[in-house]
Amino acid sequence: MIIARSAADVHAAVEGPITFVPTMGALHDGHASLVRLAAQGTGPVVVSDFVNPTQFGPGEDFEAYPRDLDADAAIAEAAGADVLWAPSVEEIYPPGFATTVDPGPLAEELCGASRPGHFVGVATVVIRLFGLMQPVRAIFGRKDYQQLVLLQRVTRDLALGIDVVGAPTIREHDGLAMSSRNRYLSPEERALAAVVPNALRNVAASYANGERRPDALLDVPLDALELEYLTVRAADLSPYDPDRPAVVLIAGRIGGTRLIDNLELDPIAPASAGDALFAKESA
Amino acid sequence: MIIARSAADVHAAVEGPITFVPTMGALHDGHASLVRLAAQGTGPVVVSDFVNPTQFGPGEDFEAYPRDLDADAAIAEAAGADVLWAPSVEEIYPPGFATTVDPGPLAEELCGASRPGHFVGVATVVIRLFGLMQPVRAIFGRKDYQQLVLLQRVTRDLALGIDVVGAPTIREHDGLAMSSRNRYLSPEERALAAVVPNALRNVAASYANGERRPDALLDVPLDALELEYLTVRAADLSPYDPDRPAVVLIAGRIGGTRLIDNLELDPIAPASAGDALFAKESA
Repeated sequence: MIIARSAADVHAAVEGPITFVPTMGALHDGHASLVRLAAQGTGPVVVSDFVNPTQFGPGEDFEAYPRDLDADAAIAEAAGADVLWAPSVEEIYPPGFATTVDPGPLAEELCGASRPGHFVGVATVVIRLFGLMQPVRAIFGRKDYQQLVLLQRVTRDLALGIDVVGAPTIREHDGLAMSSRNRYLSPEERALAAVVPNALRNVAASYANGERRPDALLDVPLDALELEYLTVRAADLSPYDPDRPAVVLIAGRIGGTRLIDNLELDPIAPASAGDALFAKESA
Repeated sequence: MIIARSAADVHAAVEGPITFVPTMGALHDGHASLVRLAAQGTGPVVVSDFVNPTQFGPGEDFEAYPRDLDADAAIAEAAGADVLWAPSVEEIYPPGFATTVDPGPLAEELCGASRPGHFVGVATVVIRLFGLMQPVRAIFGRKDYQQLVLLQRVTRDLALGIDVVGAPTIREHDGLAMSSRNRYLSPEERALAAVVPNALRNVAASYANGERRPDALLDVPLDALELEYLTVRAADLSPYDPDRPAVVLIAGRIGGTRLIDNLELDPIAPASAGDALFAKESA
């Protein structure tokens, strides 16, 4: 695997249609599963490693966000990446850069309600990364469900001709979704964090038992979680419709650490949703 | 020349790297000159003909904007277009379309100050048209100078890899820049409209004589013009610098018709700027 500092170095190193896995580094098994999925294709796999300043708000954890390029390189290589691209801030935001890409009203809801500007920052950097990489396919984790839906929308709206693929969430033994921010949790907080997947599991169990009323579905224990939202929506994040595939989404804090998660709910085969919560990836 | 209704029909009709000339129809000799410039390349020339609703504000002339596809087709074909693409509103803005592309603070200045949202509408539709056409090159008139600068910036910021080329302004016998909106002028208003190019010519003459003070440069007769702005800026529309290439820009109304124009000022060869105002295109 090659470590490239510039987009030009990436293109000099690879040939053929790129599958692209954009990350903010701090790679864990969740990212590794995205790279393994990418490596199932025939073209080269490029993983980017860039902590994007514009998607962090004032008082958020941009400075504290974990950075370790050597560790990231080891994980990316083991998972099958051909190139790890670690661009400079100057390559991504050259002097005079002024454009923003706004995914529209959905960017202000859910996580966007508590993180103003976050999804505009995400969409802008991803569309620029897409421009620099010109991939045929890009892979994102379903853990960041709203991000995935918004990036699929922006990519379609701008007719970029790139397949934006969502990959399954990878979880710890107790169901906690893997996240670079989990390392902020103290051992005590880490134990309490199981409340997040447990809440989703309870909603899914209720759904599997035929419950379709949102208020009843969402009446689950939240214990130590400082809840930001727990909601059920249609799979495209439009308003919930009991007869269509749905998704339950949660966000909240344990101590100072913000955690998010979600689980898809299928009205045809509802039991599978609960099972999926603890499915292990087939490595 | 083929008239295509959908992007798929365009791609079925042409092969090789596309040179793209986006228009809102109502084609005149100015547009014809853009198409002729495009046809000097080796690839196919695609002209789009789409009156974009999102770049018109409330009370502007979206409904009244002239539309005549047959006349446009005749002009585009005579100028050397291979395809005239006249998409439906549904193709450009399908259900669920929600993304906007914002060129940044410059979009709020000059014409953007009196037309809130205009350049966001322009940038969004052009980036989508670029996505659907995937051209290697796109040609816009320098008459819409701020639009050209903003589209060059957005295209660069999003790393689209498309050359955005500005083509010289084509003018009537008295120097009035050709514009689809000139047909709104009554004969009396049309005669008065010469004040716009005359103001630019006076600024250029003063500049050619060595004047570099903005206030003195811009002290020119404006007669019947209801002035919106007359200003001098650096060529990239950053603040004026007497030692760098500059541009004088004007906007105002004659009767109800909004007219804009501009003229580039070169500190090295200032005399050429004034001459260019009345240069005829070499057909």
